[in-house]
Amino acid sequence: MIKIAVLGYGTVGSGVVEVIERHNSLLSERLREKIAVKYILDLRDFPGDTYEDKIVHDYSTILNDPEISILCEVMGGVGAAYQFTKQALEAGKSVCTSNKELVAKHGAELFAIAERMHCNYMFEASVAGGIPIIRAIGSALSADRVEAVTGILNGTTNYILTKMEKEGADYADVLKQAQELGYAERNPEADVEGLDAGRKIAILADMLTGKNVNPDKVTTEGITKITSADFAYAKAAGMTIKLLARCSVSEDGSVQALVAPFMLPADHALGRVDDVFNGVLVTCTMLGDAMFGGQGAGKLPTASAVAADVMDCAMHPGRTVMRGWSEEEAELADVTETERRFFVRIKASALADVQAAFAGSSLVEAGGGEDSGLFVPAMKEKEFDAKCAALGDAILNRIRVA
Amino acid sequence: MIKIAVLGYGTVGSGVVEVIERHNSLLSERLREKIAVKYILDLRDFPGDTYEDKIVHDYSTILNDPEISILCEVMGGVGAAYQFTKQALEAGKSVCTSNKELVAKHGAELFAIAERMHCNYMFEASVAGGIPIIRAIGSALSADRVEAVTGILNGTTNYILTKMEKEGADYADVLKQAQELGYAERNPEADVEGLDAGRKIAILADMLTGKNVNPDKVTTEGITKITSADFAYAKAAGMTIKLLARCSVSEDGSVQALVAPFMLPADHALGRVDDVFNGVLVTCTMLGDAMFGGQGAGKLPTASAVAADVMDCAMHPGRTVMRGWSEEEAELADVTETERRFFVRIKASALADVQAAFAGSSLVEAGGGEDSGLFVPAMKEKEFDAKCAALGDAILNRIRVA
Repeated sequence: MIKIAVLGYGTVGSGVVEVIERHNSLLSERLREKIAVKYILDLRDFPGDTYEDKIVHDYSTILNDPEISILCEVMGGVGAAYQFTKQALEAGKSVCTSNKELVAKHGAELFAIAERMHCNYMFEASVAGGIPIIRAIGSALSADRVEAVTGILNGTTNYILTKMEKEGADYADVLKQAQELGYAERNPEADVEGLDAGRKIAILADMLTGKNVNPDKVTTEGITKITSADFAYAKAAGMTIKLLARCSVSEDGSVQALVAPFMLPADHALGRVDDVFNGVLVTCTMLGDAMFGGQGAGKLPTASAVAADVMDCAMHPGRTVMRGWSEEEAELADVTETERRFFVRIKASALADVQAAFAGSSLVEAGGGEDSGLFVPAMKEKEFDAKCAALGDAILNRIRVA
Repeated sequence: MIKIAVLGYGTVGSGVVEVIERHNSLLSERLREKIAVKYILDLRDFPGDTYEDKIVHDYSTILNDPEISILCEVMGGVGAAYQFTKQALEAGKSVCTSNKELVAKHGAELFAIAERMHCNYMFEASVAGGIPIIRAIGSALSADRVEAVTGILNGTTNYILTKMEKEGADYADVLKQAQELGYAERNPEADVEGLDAGRKIAILADMLTGKNVNPDKVTTEGITKITSADFAYAKAAGMTIKLLARCSVSEDGSVQALVAPFMLPADHALGRVDDVFNGVLVTCTMLGDAMFGGQGAGKLPTASAVAADVMDCAMHPGRTVMRGWSEEEAELADVTETERRFFVRIKASALADVQAAFAGSSLVEAGGGEDSGLFVPAMKEKEFDAKCAALGDAILNRIRVA
């Protein structure tokens, strides 16, 4: 009998219990051993809940119970979650997590403990929910060199951008709607400013480099400045706007990580990922491009990923299944040194000045009015930024082009 | 030092050697141990080849060398490949294969030997080449119930259908072109009649059921009867035609497996998978739909998948990483009992008769001429077939609708 504990009885935690209970006979058959949730740790009581009797408030009950070999940490945060995870791993108990913040911040240290104690710190659910991107990079592509990963990793912002595109709606209106539907938090900053996607791309960059990428050093730009006017120009050019998280490792070892809105062709593999869905495009030396898509968040998809990690731990007791990355910090290249194309939306009155500053740029016709839209030829971001600064308030918005 | 042998120095075999040699330092670093190809088994000599000195003609050299712990069987066929694989596993050596025919036919027996001998029979490359669908179903979705898998699993037929759609070309012309480009075999039957896709979907059905699905019992229908006229109607209806391989397991345990051309909406996730690419849509109880796309064939993508299996075996010596399915034969449901919609292309002169036979069908306008196209309401396939038989030669073609 495999007995597990779930830390945190919120959305994902209750999902994990549901997956393991609803699929219990299936999972037990696959494991050739019965599996059961023995404890649920939460500070609250849940009178009347089906699993009320499993609720405990004191972590030491779980930590000191030798029957518990696997824990699911779905509390979030980097305080108690960090302490509990560390203590469990030190005790040789495996931990499966959906906590991207903790993996991004302390993953390297926790993997080292897991490996020393012959147990596992598993994190499939921390990036792109139910899309198995961690296993793909960690195992399926382990004989290949992953050159780049580009993804739509945040469902909230993708929902907002999709609504803006489809309905010609304004950012503020759609955000309010998303908050009412529960797709966006009351304080939406972590999503709309790209911080959530930044943590996720930091984790993927950790895997690509084998080193520790500091999530706070990932350049992130959010979607708050994107307007319906930008979408009108994108549409006129056969393009769409998506918040992309991208990391790449060049052959000389130079690492880039960036989260930002991009204009990309409407028929691009990621251009077709709409609403709350996530999509990840992986570019490898041997395999070429591979695309993964599905539900990146939500109770059951995320819980299913946590439970799959539990299955792997249960299948391989006393063994570290997947190695993490080292504690050595990876150096990130300066994104402003990257050469790329930009879209600029400008004051129509400044068109001649802007065209003079950006020779070879091409105008986009989108009905016109007080603004104009142009695609600017490829140049280093810093060079582009300097030109924009010189043009002052003529530049209303600028969006990278993928 | 991990020493491996490659059986068969054809396209995939030379790819495996290339992946392991070109990425050698990367792989050795990931394994924390050096890895090298020691032998290449082939009946031919390769004078002047970089790896000429590794070529052996006698399998016993490999089988009896205790240094060899992992073999890559990329010979194909179910004769020598079967004998060699069995002997290797019996000797406790792991085997990684791209041989879908062998996995589909003798997989269950070979997994049982691997498990008894604490080694592995790995087959990621046997389905959808470099797309990690085997690991997704076997590991990432191991806590979920996979209800159905629908895929474009054969690049040759997808190339032909894409060309027919884009260029309005006829089947015979495109096939000839594909043969000249090396995308289709001189004897294309296994591809165009759906047998190759049938073996692959049998393997996925094995995984979904945990039992042995006889590939010869999978209903397969090829693409040889699809015409440019069918594509004209598909286009007029906002649809496309793809050769889909599909298996599903209902909650009562009833199993279906089918390969056939389907009309599906042009904006369906699989409708957008073009040319030689493969795509697989997996439907799970908890996760919902997940989509995987990429290169399903070709030297390096397939070799990369074989090499990833080698990495897994090397990482877990003396352990069975992934379990297969039992030797018990799965019973397949009769596909003619399935209710579904059909498209029919008919003689224009018989329109009134066909409309009378299929009440509620809807006409598709596509320029007209000597034929007409209709979508027929959902009914059991056997019922539909009986009505078609009664209509005789009025029915020019019929295609399932997804």
